[in-house]
Amino acid sequence: MKTFLDCYPCFLDQALRAGRMATDDEKKIKELLDVVGCMIKDIPMEHTPPETGEVIYRKVRELTGVEDPYKSVKQSSIQEALDLVPELKKMIDEADDRLLAAIRLAIAGNLIDLGVRRQFVLTDEIGKIMNQDFAIFDYAAFRKHLDNTSSVLYIGDNAGESVFDRILIEELGKPVTYAVRDIPVINDVTMEDAIASGIGDVAEIISSGSTAPGAILRFCNALFLEKFEHSDLIISKGQGNYEALSEVNRPVFFLLKAKCKVIAGDLDVRVDDIVLKGINT
Amino acid sequence: MKTFLDCYPCFLDQALRAGRMATDDEKKIKELLDVVGCMIKDIPMEHTPPETGEVIYRKVRELTGVEDPYKSVKQSSIQEALDLVPELKKMIDEADDRLLAAIRLAIAGNLIDLGVRRQFVLTDEIGKIMNQDFAIFDYAAFRKHLDNTSSVLYIGDNAGESVFDRILIEELGKPVTYAVRDIPVINDVTMEDAIASGIGDVAEIISSGSTAPGAILRFCNALFLEKFEHSDLIISKGQGNYEALSEVNRPVFFLLKAKCKVIAGDLDVRVDDIVLKGINT
Repeated sequence: MKTFLDCYPCFLDQALRAGRMATDDEKKIKELLDVVGCMIKDIPMEHTPPETGEVIYRKVRELTGVEDPYKSVKQSSIQEALDLVPELKKMIDEADDRLLAAIRLAIAGNLIDLGVRRQFVLTDEIGKIMNQDFAIFDYAAFRKHLDNTSSVLYIGDNAGESVFDRILIEELGKPVTYAVRDIPVINDVTMEDAIASGIGDVAEIISSGSTAPGAILRFCNALFLEKFEHSDLIISKGQGNYEALSEVNRPVFFLLKAKCKVIAGDLDVRVDDIVLKGINT
Repeated sequence: MKTFLDCYPCFLDQALRAGRMATDDEKKIKELLDVVGCMIKDIPMEHTPPETGEVIYRKVRELTGVEDPYKSVKQSSIQEALDLVPELKKMIDEADDRLLAAIRLAIAGNLIDLGVRRQFVLTDEIGKIMNQDFAIFDYAAFRKHLDNTSSVLYIGDNAGESVFDRILIEELGKPVTYAVRDIPVINDVTMEDAIASGIGDVAEIISSGSTAPGAILRFCNALFLEKFEHSDLIISKGQGNYEALSEVNRPVFFLLKAKCKVIAGDLDVRVDDIVLKGINT
């Protein structure tokens, strides 16, 4: 997905939020905004948004010296999700269609974003998504690709959400490779987070090589690209990966909840809609 | 009021919105964002936000060649408000305290912001404000200053809202000078708009000399400053004037609805609260 005009103020807002996670020093945060503000002229609209995210979060690390501002937030998100696992498994066991229920849960997991919701709110939200209509629903194509593929490449999004990904992986019934970010960026899932989420028990975990908040192919490593070229089912979670991969030429299924109006507009859905969208299927 | 960190992304968002009002040319708008992004490093937190607003809207004019992007929006806002006048006057006539009712209406007029609300919604909102508790209510001091002053300086905010200002001016019972922006900036009230709102029938209209979206004293002309120094009651409408004047040493009464979290935070109220706040009283 390209960068839309509305993305530019949002880049500055993201820098502000990330700066505040890393430091209380207003002067340092202002310095970060100065740098990111001046970067705007070098961000063409043809770039995908996570390419800019990569630079912003690199600047946060450089200016504040904090490598992983979201570390403790990610740890609590994972723990919060792990505590829900018995309940989530019960929902799968009671579902008419286990696979579809697991897909819904994998999308619901995206709500854990930044660990700001309290658990009882989260379970309410999960309940809603379990009954929400999809705005785009390429489920038949998804099942067909799942039946025909010998392996699945699953590209993770947030830490915490990763626990919900594990539930879906268990329902896929095929060998799965789970790709994570190469380094900590926002609250995105890294190798350490994936292991803490129990993904190691159900899938092979690899780094995508991307240090951006999305699997931008030209940032990805050889191992990831090899899996990307040869899997007949690629699952891409969340907004950042959609932004990075919406125009590739491989069979990718995007599982996400549209949380920003730009992405909703690009998908031709509304904010808060849930989406299972396949491309090149 | 100083510039808070949260103001910086908002500056870029304001540039985007103003750019879109002036042109459909995405390249020109991107160019505007490039310039405003790079300005951030030159905006110290000690500046008041409307100082930056002045530069942003000047850049919009320079880059697009459009002197008054909000012209037609302002015209419809004024017409929309004029259509309500009989109803507003009836509300005053039925009120126990005519002055207080007119103050509430003057605050309610601020809801006309950008003419995006349809009339029936506006009348609903007016009804709410007529019954809403003030978060800051320096009404006794306001009355005292009104009783003791020989003249009032009334600093206008938006076009359309200006019609509501006229209703309040009629209730003040003292000679009033109504100050407007020197040139069109956002949808702020100018000389032409004030005349179209009927202010000329009830007050002397002057330009403040400020080309910023707020009466920043060092941008103001000699006539305005003379009135500012000698009026024992200065009424300042809206957020932009509050940002410009919150730290002056004259008896100013701020009438506003807090619409952004930064201003609400500075006033120690909540977003959507209504305020009648006096300083140096």
